[in-house]
Amino acid sequence: MFSDEFYPRFSDTDALGHINNTCIPVWFEGAREGVFKVFSPDLDLKTWPLILAKIDVHFHAQIFYGEKIEVRTFVSRIGNSSFDVYQEVWQQDECKASGTAVMVHFCYQQQRAVAIDENLKQILLSHAPTQEKRS
Amino acid sequence: MFSDEFYPRFSDTDALGHINNTCIPVWFEGAREGVFKVFSPDLDLKTWPLILAKIDVHFHAQIFYGEKIEVRTFVSRIGNSSFDVYQEVWQQDECKASGTAVMVHFCYQQQRAVAIDENLKQILLSHAPTQEKRS
Amino acid sequence: MFSDEFYPRFSDTDALGHINNTCIPVWFEGAREGVFKVFSPDLDLKTWPLILAKIDVHFHAQIFYGEKIEVRTFVSRIGNSSFDVYQEVWQQDECKASGTAVMVHFCYQQQRAVAIDENLKQILLSHAPTQEKRS
Amino acid sequence: MFSDEFYPRFSDTDALGHINNTCIPVWFEGAREGVFKVFSPDLDLKTWPLILAKIDVHFHAQIFYGEKIEVRTFVSRIGNSSFDVYQEVWQQDECKASGTAVMVHFCYQQQRAVAIDENLKQILLSHAPTQEKRS
Repeated sequence: MFSDEFYPRFSDTDALGHINNTCIPVWFEGAREGVFKVFSPDLDLKTWPLILAKIDVHFHAQIFYGEKIEVRTFVSRIGNSSFDVYQEVWQQDECKASGTAVMVHFCYQQQRAVAIDENLKQILLSHAPTQEKRS
Repeated sequence: MFSDEFYPRFSDTDALGHINNTCIPVWFEGAREGVFKVFSPDLDLKTWPLILAKIDVHFHAQIFYGEKIEVRTFVSRIGNSSFDVYQEVWQQDECKASGTAVMVHFCYQQQRAVAIDENLKQILLSHAPTQEKRS
Repeated sequence: MFSDEFYPRFSDTDALGHINNTCIPVWFEGAREGVFKVFSPDLDLKTWPLILAKIDVHFHAQIFYGEKIEVRTFVSRIGNSSFDVYQEVWQQDECKASGTAVMVHFCYQQQRAVAIDENLKQILLSHAPTQEKRS
Repeated sequence: MFSDEFYPRFSDTDALGHINNTCIPVWFEGAREGVFKVFSPDLDLKTWPLILAKIDVHFHAQIFYGEKIEVRTFVSRIGNSSFDVYQEVWQQDECKASGTAVMVHFCYQQQRAVAIDENLKQILLSHAPTQEKRS
């Protein structure tokens, strides 16, 4: 698991008095940095090796301003060139939102998917949700 | 169908040189304003009648800065108190991204779902994807 | 003058029930696209010729969700390599916010300011606030 | 001084490969939370006591993705009902951006400025830049 902790910003709220839903994909992408580093340890933007195919977010409960957020990030599926990142937003011991991003190991120059090396798969596997529960 | 046309902003780009994926949920929520007005014609924020349960977004192709965007918005499912909004991002005659938002007719004071009136269902139905193709 | 018209998005609001102040720099940068095109007609991101040195924003009145915005953009000062862009946010016939961006004609490869050609100065001058009032 | 440390998010970058300038006002507002708590210890959104009159931001150097940010926040002027918050963005031992927000102690119900209590002034004063250097 990767863990990212921070406080919501005032600009993250909306007129309903809670955190606006569009913040969650932003937080989730931010919290995938640990996954990015598996593929690009120095986060070099000129040789970026990943592309996003799909996201979904389930909104379970309202998220409040003024209380700390933890985003928990797991690798929940590993395919040949694609993999799933499952993420949760926790606040005050409650899972407020969750979602999955389908990512593809990708070569931007050739504009095509690239198989994930076996050693990278092992690293990704160490962040699987089940692996997490076992440890 | 509701249509929302605009140009991407420079701040919508990311270091990969295209529009960042987190803009799409923002654009989609913006383009659901037509749906919001079905439930709240004056968009009164103090009696807001909707809550978001789930979103998904499929990313089909890279979206560019400098070219006009059209977001097309349809009501793709109408349940008792919930309904689906299906949306597409078009740029240069290509559907670049699509996704569905599951919305719930909701009373914030009582914190519970509320059945959708029959007359509102008729208005929503007039924005169905099939209805659209017929006309 | 360059004019940019649009509706605020729901995600632009904050918990105080109005448009959050951090939206204004985003709107202003978006509305400077006309100025960008003076220097880069095709908005080519690989040869971007401008850098931002300073911004200020004065907040005159609260900006509301649900009412159309017009951002008005003027070139208010032209120096050797730098120039000022003065901008206003209008809503319901009231100037709600205003501000100035100090921009520099810039070569990213050489990381240095570049003098503005005389013919570009003439185009910029045609967007001066006084020029505007005269016409 | 208030200090806020975090990593930029991928969505904070723009097509020029650095952090987009519009992130700085967002980071600055986020980092003013310590100041907000002087006026509203529980950050209650229903009795928010502050309004923003003006901001400026000077951009000194490009800010990079992948390297930690520290936002340093000082109270640089205290008036009768208004005060200035001076802030700096630090990355890799360099001050990359700085700016001042003019805030007003404000009653939203009566829509008017309110004098700042002497005891609050003392707390604000303890975050003055000079006070900081002395300690």
